[in-house]
Order: sequence, then C-alpha cells, then structure tokens
Amino acid sequence: MSRPSSRSPDQLREVKITRNYTRHAEGSVLVEFGDTKVLCTASVEESVPSFLRGKGEGWVTAEYGMLPRSTHTRMAREAAKGKQSGRTQEIQRLIGRSLRAVVDLKALGERQITVDCDVIQADGGTRTASITGACVAVHDAVSKLVADGKLAANPLRDWVAAISVGIYKGVPVLDLDYPEDSDCDTDMNIVMTGSGGIVEVQGTAEGTPFSRAELDALLALGGQGIAELVRLQKQAVG
Amino acid sequence: MSRPSSRSPDQLREVKITRNYTRHAEGSVLVEFGDTKVLCTASVEESVPSFLRGKGEGWVTAEYGMLPRSTHTRMAREAAKGKQSGRTQEIQRLIGRSLRAVVDLKALGERQITVDCDVIQADGGTRTASITGACVAVHDAVSKLVADGKLAANPLRDWVAAISVGIYKGVPVLDLDYPEDSDCDTDMNIVMTGSGGIVEVQGTAEGTPFSRAELDALLALGGQGIAELVRLQKQAVG
Amino acid sequence: MSRPSSRSPDQLREVKITRNYTRHAEGSVLVEFGDTKVLCTASVEESVPSFLRGKGEGWVTAEYGMLPRSTHTRMAREAAKGKQSGRTQEIQRLIGRSLRAVVDLKALGERQITVDCDVIQADGGTRTASITGACVAVHDAVSKLVADGKLAANPLRDWVAAISVGIYKGVPVLDLDYPEDSDCDTDMNIVMTGSGGIVEVQGTAEGTPFSRAELDALLALGGQGIAELVRLQKQAVG
Amino acid sequence: MSRPSSRSPDQLREVKITRNYTRHAEGSVLVEFGDTKVLCTASVEESVPSFLRGKGEGWVTAEYGMLPRSTHTRMAREAAKGKQSGRTQEIQRLIGRSLRAVVDLKALGERQITVDCDVIQADGGTRTASITGACVAVHDAVSKLVADGKLAANPLRDWVAAISVGIYKGVPVLDLDYPEDSDCDTDMNIVMTGSGGIVEVQGTAEGTPFSRAELDALLALGGQGIAELVRLQKQAVG
Amino acid sequence: MSRPSSRSPDQLREVKITRNYTRHAEGSVLVEFGDTKVLCTASVEESVPSFLRGKGEGWVTAEYGMLPRSTHTRMAREAAKGKQSGRTQEIQRLIGRSLRAVVDLKALGERQITVDCDVIQADGGTRTASITGACVAVHDAVSKLVADGKLAANPLRDWVAAISVGIYKGVPVLDLDYPEDSDCDTDMNIVMTGSGGIVEVQGTAEGTPFSRAELDALLALGGQGIAELVRLQKQAVG
Amino acid sequence: MSRPSSRSPDQLREVKITRNYTRHAEGSVLVEFGDTKVLCTASVEESVPSFLRGKGEGWVTAEYGMLPRSTHTRMAREAAKGKQSGRTQEIQRLIGRSLRAVVDLKALGERQITVDCDVIQADGGTRTASITGACVAVHDAVSKLVADGKLAANPLRDWVAAISVGIYKGVPVLDLDYPEDSDCDTDMNIVMTGSGGIVEVQGTAEGTPFSRAELDALLALGGQGIAELVRLQKQAVG
Repeated sequence: MSRPSSRSPDQLREVKITRNYTRHAEGSVLVEFGDTKVLCTASVEESVPSFLRGKGEGWVTAEYGMLPRSTHTRMAREAAKGKQSGRTQEIQRLIGRSLRAVVDLKALGERQITVDCDVIQADGGTRTASITGACVAVHDAVSKLVADGKLAANPLRDWVAAISVGIYKGVPVLDLDYPEDSDCDTDMNIVMTGSGGIVEVQGTAEGTPFSRAELDALLALGGQGIAELVRLQKQAVG
Repeated sequence: MSRPSSRSPDQLREVKITRNYTRHAEGSVLVEFGDTKVLCTASVEESVPSFLRGKGEGWVTAEYGMLPRSTHTRMAREAAKGKQSGRTQEIQRLIGRSLRAVVDLKALGERQITVDCDVIQADGGTRTASITGACVAVHDAVSKLVADGKLAANPLRDWVAAISVGIYKGVPVLDLDYPEDSDCDTDMNIVMTGSGGIVEVQGTAEGTPFSRAELDALLALGGQGIAELVRLQKQAVG
Repeated sequence: MSRPSSRSPDQLREVKITRNYTRHAEGSVLVEFGDTKVLCTASVEESVPSFLRGKGEGWVTAEYGMLPRSTHTRMAREAAKGKQSGRTQEIQRLIGRSLRAVVDLKALGERQITVDCDVIQADGGTRTASITGACVAVHDAVSKLVADGKLAANPLRDWVAAISVGIYKGVPVLDLDYPEDSDCDTDMNIVMTGSGGIVEVQGTAEGTPFSRAELDALLALGGQGIAELVRLQKQAVG
Repeated sequence: MSRPSSRSPDQLREVKITRNYTRHAEGSVLVEFGDTKVLCTASVEESVPSFLRGKGEGWVTAEYGMLPRSTHTRMAREAAKGKQSGRTQEIQRLIGRSLRAVVDLKALGERQITVDCDVIQADGGTRTASITGACVAVHDAVSKLVADGKLAANPLRDWVAAISVGIYKGVPVLDLDYPEDSDCDTDMNIVMTGSGGIVEVQGTAEGTPFSRAELDALLALGGQGIAELVRLQKQAVG
Repeated sequence: MSRPSSRSPDQLREVKITRNYTRHAEGSVLVEFGDTKVLCTASVEESVPSFLRGKGEGWVTAEYGMLPRSTHTRMAREAAKGKQSGRTQEIQRLIGRSLRAVVDLKALGERQITVDCDVIQADGGTRTASITGACVAVHDAVSKLVADGKLAANPLRDWVAAISVGIYKGVPVLDLDYPEDSDCDTDMNIVMTGSGGIVEVQGTAEGTPFSRAELDALLALGGQGIAELVRLQKQAVG
Repeated sequence: MSRPSSRSPDQLREVKITRNYTRHAEGSVLVEFGDTKVLCTASVEESVPSFLRGKGEGWVTAEYGMLPRSTHTRMAREAAKGKQSGRTQEIQRLIGRSLRAVVDLKALGERQITVDCDVIQADGGTRTASITGACVAVHDAVSKLVADGKLAANPLRDWVAAISVGIYKGVPVLDLDYPEDSDCDTDMNIVMTGSGGIVEVQGTAEGTPFSRAELDALLALGGQGIAELVRLQKQAVG
C-alpha cells in the first residue's frame, strides 16, 4: 500500500501554526495540516449565556464554517441558504466540547470565549485542524486576560489536540487527507489532551464494520499523532 | 457504588420490542429501554433522493424527534421554533448511518426507506433505543417488500443495535438511564452488528478525560449489551 | 346508505381515554376515537406570557402535531420543513380557545398550562379527539395543583368536548372517520361544554353549499355526541 | 342597548364596491364596509399547482395581508418577521375555500386565479369584506377570460359573500365594527351564496358559551345581511 | 427621441400628494407619480431601538413593500416567501437614511417614527415616490406631536424629496416610468433637500458605463425635478 | 487636517494583490487595501440560472461575507443567524453588477462565474477592495477557460475597480480606512472601468447634506484612485 501523498502510515502532514494571523481577535491562529488551512480566532466577551448568569463561571463555545470555495467544487454559502448543515453543527459542537475539557471554567470567571474556525482551504481533516488551532487561539486569548490583569491565573489546564486516523486500503494510517478520506473504510477522529487523556473518540465504519483489533490499532496511531501535535502547539507558543 | 435503579453494572434495563404498534407504516415498532419509549416507523417510498437517481441503488435515512413533554420539563416544539437543534440532527444522522451499515442498498433497488424515531417518553438512551428499534422496523418493511414480490431477496444483511455505556461514580456501567447520564464522567454510545462488527463508537469525556483502560472496559461492556439486544431483536421477529 | 364502518348514523366510534399514559407531564392522556390516537399532555409552568404578566391571571394554550407516519402516506416532518402548516396552526388555535372556554383563568393564577396534542395514528377527527382528550389532561394537571396546595379551588368550570358531523352520501352522520371525511359534502366540527353551551361551530361545504335544515340536523347530531363524550370524560376521571 | 355606531341591530355599515381600482390586475376591487377598506386583486396565471397538473381543472386560491398601519397601533410587518401569523393563514384559507365553492373549476380549465386581499384600513370585519370583494374581483377576471375568448362560458356559478354577526351586550347584531368586535361575547362569520346556500359557518364564544337559540338568531341575521351584500355585488357589476 | 409618455425630457409625471389618506396613522399620505401610487404612513412609538436607549435621541426608520399585484405580472408575496428581497432591503434602508438627513433626532426625543411605504400600483420610480411622500407623512406626524404638546419645536429641519433620472435612447430624461426604466442605459436616483443639499446619489450603468459629462447632465436634471417636488410638498401641507 | 494614518488626502493605502491564494478555485485573489484583507475566489460552473437557460448567454454573480472576527468586536455569524443582513445583500448585488459591466456575457457562453468575497480582516473599504480583487479573480478564471480551449476569446472587455472617497474633517480624502469612515460627513463609493467609464456612483451624506462642489471634488479624487488601482491590477497579472 502506498498513500497518495507518499507519506508513511504513521506520518502527519506538515503542520504549521501561525499566531497573530489577523489583528482584531484576542487570539488568532492560522493552522495548516498540509493543504488544509483553518483560521481560528478566539474572541473574549465579558458576559456569559443566560443559563450561566450569576453562577461565577465562564463558557467556551465554537462556531465553524467553510468558505464556499475552500473545497474542490463550490459549496453553497450557508448564510445564503439560511441554515447551517447538520455536519457544521456537529463539528462546532465537537470543537466546543473539546476546548471546554481543558479550560477551568470557574477560573475563567463570568466571561465567554467564542472560537471561530473558518476553513480557508480544505483537504481533509478540517475538524481536527480546527481543534488543534483553536486550542492555541484560546491560549493566546487567556494569556492576554492574564497580561491585562483580568485573570490572576491561567485557566487553561492542559493542551488539547485532535487527529484523524483511518483504515486505508486495509492499513491503519494517520492524518487522512482528502483523497484518503474519500476512499476509506473506517474513519476515526480522536481528541486527546497533552497528558494523554482521551476527550473524544468518534469512529465510523463507512462500509464494512470494523473489528476491535482495528480499533486498537487506530487508537495507538492517534495517540502518537496527538503527542506530536501537542509538541508543535507548545513550540508555537514558545 | 450502587446504581440509582439498583441494577448491576452490566445489567440492561428491561427491553421491550412491540411490532405493528401503529397500522399505517410498513414497519412500526415501539421500543422500550425501561422508561425510555420510542416509536420507530419505517416508510417505504418508490423513489430515491436526486443524488442517487438512475444508479439502481436505494437509500435508508432517518428522522428523530422528541415529543415536547417526553422530558422532565417541557421542551420547546422544534416545529414551532422553526428548526431542528444540532443535537437532533446529530442523532438522526447517526441512526441513518447505522442502518445503512446493515442494508444492502443495491439489493434494495431504487427505493427509499425513511425511519422516523419519535420519543414518546425519555429517560436516557433515546438514540440507542432508536437504533435498536429502527432496525426491527426496517426488517418488517423489507420483509413486506419481499412478501409483496417487490424484492427477490432480503437486503438486510445483519442486525444492528446500540447501547450506551459510561463511567458512573468511577465504575463502568451499561445502559445509562437519565439520573446516571446527568451525573456521569464519561459517556459512550456504541453501535454494533449482530456478528460483532463495530459500526460507530462515540465516546465523550463530560469532565475529566478518560484513559485507554477505561475505554477498553466500556467497549467490553458495550459489546456484551449489544449481544443481548440482538438476541431480543431476533426473538421479537420470531 | 351504509357507513364504511357499518356504524349507525348517530354512532360514535369506540372511545377510550387512558390517563397517566406517560409519566413526566402533570396531565397525560391517550385518547382514542376508533383508530385515531392522540397523546395529550398538559404541562404546568409557573409563569405567563408577557401580555399577561402582573395581571394575576393565567393562560391555557395548545400545540398540535402529527407524527410523520401517523397518516396513510408519510407526511413531511414540520420540524424538518422549518414551519408549521396553516392547518396545524388553525387546529392548535382551536384547541386553545376551546380549553380557555372552560378554565377560570383568574382562578388559575399567574401560571400557564400548555397542552401538547400529538397524533400517534390518524383516521379522521384528530382535532375533535384532541380537544376531548386535552380537557381530561387539563383536569388532571389542575387537580395536581389543588392536591399540591398550589390552588385552593379547581379552576375547571365545566367539561368541554368536540365531535365532527357531516353529510355523507346525503345522510347526516356522527364522528367521521377518514374514509367518510374524504368523501363528504359537508363537514362540521362542534365544540360544546358539559352543560350544553356551544363553544365553537365550524362548518364547511366541501362541494355543494348546505342548507339551514342540514345545519340543524348536524347540530342536533353533534349535541348528542358531545353529551356521550362528556359522560366518558367523567367516567374516565372516576 | 345602542351600538357604538348608532346603527340598528340588523343594519350593515355603508358598503362600497369600486371596480378597476388598480390597473394591472385582471380583477381589482376596493371593497369598503364602513371604515374597513380592502383591496382585492384577482390575478390569472396560465398554469396550475403541481397536484392538479394534467387533470384539466383549474384552481382558485387567496392570500391575505394587513398593511402594518391599517390598524390602531402599528403591527409588525409579516414580511420583515419572516412568517405569516396563524390568523393570516386561517383567513386566507377561508377566502380560498369560499371562492372555490362558487367557481366551476373544471370549466375554468388549467389555470389558476390568485386573489390578494390586502387590508388598507381596518375597523373590524376584514375577512368578510375580503370574501365579498374577492368574489367581484374573480367575476371581473373570469369575464375578461370570456371576453378574450379564452373561456367559452363563465365558470362563476353563483355569488358568494360573507358577514359577521355577534352578540353585543346581549343583543344579536349584524356586521360588527372594531369597537363591537372587541367587546363581544360571541362572534360568528357566515359565508353564503346568492341562492342562500351556506358555505361556511364559524362561530366562537369569546367568553360564555352560547346557546342554540342564540345561534339561530345569529344565522337569521347573517342570512339577511348576505342577501343585501349579494344585491350590492350584482349592482356593482351592473 | 420621443418618450413613451410623450413628456418632454425634463418633465415630471403628474404628481399628487393626498394627506390623511387612512385614519389610524399619525401621518398618512398617498403619493402618486403618474401611475405609481404609494401609501406612506408614519407611526410614532414612544420608545427607541435598544442601541439608542437612554441617549435622549430619537430614531426614524422605514419599511417598504409592494402589494403582490401592484406590478404587471404578480410577484410572490414576501410574507409568504418568508423573507424580504435584497431589493426591498436596499430601498427601505435608503428611505430611512433620507428621512434621517432632515430630522433633528435629538429634538425628536426618545421616540421612534416608522414610515411604511407600501406600493399600491407600480409604474417605475417607487422608491423616489416613497421618499417624497414619506417626508410629508413625517411632517404630519411631528406636527401632531407639536400640536399635542409632546414636542416644543418641530424637529423637521428641511424637506427631502427624490427623483430618478436616466439616459433613455441617448437623451437624459427626468422621472423614468416603467417602459423607460426597462430600456435605459443609465439610471440614477437622487435625493436632495429643499435647500439644495445632496443626501444620496446612486447611479448605475445598466449596460455601457457612463461618462462624467452624462453624470453632470443627470445631476442638473435631477436638481430641477427635486425643486419642483419640494414646491409640491410645501403646497400639499399648505 | 491630518489623516489618522498620516496619508495625504489623495493617497491610497498600500494595495497588494496576491493571485492563486488558494488552490481549488479557478481564480483566487487575496486583495489588501492596508489592513483590509479580502479573499476573492471565482468559481466557474457550466450552467446558468434558469432565467438565462437556452439563451446562449452567461452570468456573473457575487456573494459577500465577513468572518465573524474580521471586525473590531465580533459580529454574529450570518449562517448561524439564518439570514444575510441588508448590508451584505446590498454589497453583493453591487459587486455582481460591477463585474457584469465589464464581462461580455454573450462571449462567456452558457456558464456562470460566482465570485465569493470573504473578508478576512476589515479596516474600512471592504466593498471597494472586493470589487477590485474580484475583477482579477474573474480575469484568472476566464483566462483559464481560454487556456483550456473552452473559450475562443477573452470575454473580459475592460478592468473594473472601486474606491471610496469622503469628506473627512472638511477635506475630501481618498480611500477611507475605518477610523475615517466612522467619523466622516459624506461617504461615496465609485466604481469605474480602466477606460474611465463610470459604472456605479453611490454617495451618502451621513450628517449634513453635501454640495455639488463637494461631489465634484470627490469624483475627481475617485477617478484618480481608480486609475492607480487599474494600473496595479494590470501589474498583478503581468
């Protein structure tokens, strides 16, 4: 088996994390997993949704979108269609949950961080790149709150990153790009923390169901990829 | 640790599968997992969505809804709000994918089966009950197609069922009811076939991330529960 | 003339009223008029809509929906379409008005009762079954308020029930089922109280207009049916 | 009892029917019931809705709207809110059914007439004025089809008009204006043909239920008003 | 070149301004530019949008709509479609900005004037007629506030009117009607005050771009038309 | 007067045009006017909207959006709100009209070019940057059609660019940035072709109306800016 990109089965695409990509947001990160490019901005708002008001706790949430021509053929603009697809909603809920797993919401105080993940160019793995970049954007936003004296301690307890794994032509491979993703029997997204805790596991058999042994192989591969991504996150923030 | 329902950690709630619950649908099943009751109807339509037209293949899809007062406090009616929540869309996409994993779409021919899963009463696990009941409704609908001479062979290749597992007060438990679900560190939904293949695994750390060992324990427990559910599905259809 | 169901012209279908059908709602009634089955739940909320705030009065309102496959062929789900049909809105407004005619809103105090009428199976007469069942659900909900010491006196002043009448093959008949309803010249829904007051009369000529004499015959037939329904409501609550 | 307008109980407001009020529509009628003014335009389209295609039959439908400041205080514009209220939908369905009761849809051929009833100024009775004016607009539109040689015979079989009646301070009165409508125990809208057939009867008890005797009195009063309205319709078309 | 209407190039259509056209609104004006007829009502509300609350300033806004059959062929009703077109939104934003240019919002105090411009009959120039009529409606509404003692001084600082100009068959012409508008190379809407200040200029080349010299000719023609319209506004209010 | 950016009144911000910014679109241009950055992608589709089908003509249209945190404070995502604002619709209609002014739609053949202008970072002038960048994206897309042999000749007849001008502290200035735009009496957007034809002029008095002399000064300034932008467009494509 050889991967379309000629990568080895356990090899990530080239990952780049560019901080301060735009200038208005409290955290602004362009994350690239090969040709997949996602702009992740973290916006701090000094209020919380109504269900948290007066509880002394903060909130972290995410929204996700794809530019209409981030993809091979143009997709209809969700704002023009007047609704977000089920896929969009699934992804933004996943990003939000993943971030909340590593933010101490009590330590954040009554404020909300909204992370917008907008896909500039898509080549598979937009949700995993989003989570990985969003965590750095949140890091930068909360660091700014600490620097501005609004927070005494950093509420980010750990790093969180995400990667896809799948069984491509019978072989477990790491970090699927679009050609692999389109031709894959089993596809799994794994979200883990810097200390190795599992936050989310979402595996789907596209065709034939997969076995427990395959699942184990994919989890091992994913854990390895996440460790590398967390190393890159730490390196990006110096 | 004792479960609120006094069940042992590996014990399912009482499961009931009532076929022909309503009279218009080609398949109509009331599935009960304890106090969770979902009506699953399978409707056959002699046409397919436009992306499949002329390809000689069928389609299986699902829609999900909760009656406004199926829950402890009344939820707003989605039809009145004018949109389905992200949660609703996630669940109905999951049900559809799970069913398609066991239906031979080519053997189904150019027709669509729409399964409606409507929650009459909710006490945790509505999505797993829905998948388990929906599979029986699809069975009945395709059996009718065979009986009516519209299909030569049964396109249902295997059974598919689903169960939730979670870590409740530190102990892995099977088939979470609402009180457990609300107070659970880790929550996983597992969808498997009668022959033991994994179709979907979706695990989420609600608070602290979970470890690989915990994941393994949950998968084992889930596999056991699915085996029992498939036995009950087979028993229900005689 | 013989009715498709072989009933005599002034004969109701078999009516069943099952209380406490689901366990979360303050009132939960499954009402059956033959093959028409509607689940009516009454939910009490300790607040009122903004137009009544601070006036010391309560409110009773209703929502109506049909499960997609409650009907002969599957109807599109209103939540998925993103709006309720004109028919749905007409019916839920009618149910709300009918209930308010027998509830003393001042005696109810500043709280709202929302009755959800969800059609599980349809065979004609879903709106009349809904009103008839909803009144029992409201009865149970207000009885609970009295039992809980939240209300000193019962604000339900009378019973209210509804029935359809129509001219089928030239003969006035009571309680139309679906085959009659589809093939009927004139169709009338009558809502009356236990003491014989008229709350709503809605008569429509589907084809040829009807005469005053026909209207009189239908009103007589309807009054008779309502009396029987109120007897059954009283019997259901013991 | 004296009516706010000093009319006798069986007296209509001054009714004016102005044809050719605007110049683009095939039928364009301004109808005035006292201070209630509704513009009714009938538009002919040489096609039918899909459920009628190829059946050789036509269709008549109606849409209704109120200008935002047709009322005492400004109402939100439905186009800006993004949906039509339940009341609007009820009224436009009623107007459509009333017109179809007097149009021979087979004789109309495969074309659709859409009547738009837009309320310029409201003072009670907008739906009854709409039906009464819409019938004249349809008359003019079908006369034009006959004059243009598109139809051999006039498909309008009879006139149809509508009036409200109610019990105001204990007395049955004809043609309620806004002050009466707001302070009325029972409110009924009656739609009848020129030959005295009943098309629709919709009576509602706003407070206390009404008796059969009251219903009879209202029906008698309404029949009288309709006869006068049909006389005015005939006079308007010469 | 001769215009379809036989007007000279610098000739307005006959303009009529009828005040108090309907009776509920604080200002109600029917404005006619030839066959274009727009009802402009000004409604005063004793509150302001949230972005102005507590600032001691008022607001003037506008909404615009066309009756479905104001046009040659029937347009779909925006309330039924569930959204306002881009064109509608552009026009209502333009009307609002134009009116705010001549109202002293501080002098108006914390109240809002909403002007509804509803097109009864369209023959080109509905937005310019709307602005011209709306200004008179606002005049009447603020005069009423002064007369009622709610305002000490009149907050209307100047008149504002609008006219279209265009290049039709190579010749600059004033006040385009529908046949000219449909067959015009360049189309410009000009909004000016009574004292000759320019409030808005919106020029669009429909086909070939236009030159600076053409622009100058159109501006001169427009200024002339506006002066005449302001004279008619003043004459209308006596 | 000194501009916040220290530019001279007739000085553009630094303008950068980066072609092939993303890899899927037929034309992909990042245009920067100082801190304003807009990604313009041109997508070619081998079909036309239904109103053009079978006429042998093509179409060019545009969609516009702002990333939620392209602005100083986060804006709500239009896809999440379920509708595009009036401002968004105005801008995308303007971009589309501007592009159609320089594309020979007959020469384009029955295909559509959709240009998406997505604002990555906003600092005033997003619509003028969009038009300027979009023209280059269209250039690249049609060049590709010619290179691929799908078109014999280039249907782009001229360049089109746009710039804002305004009166800032009494002085006419070119290319407003956000601080100027927020504090400006008069604001005008000018769209012109490479050969100096005017395509659109949209001038608005934010406060005091402006005079004809001011308008002339702004038009002169704008013409100068456009000439420079067209020089940069030509330079960008070599």
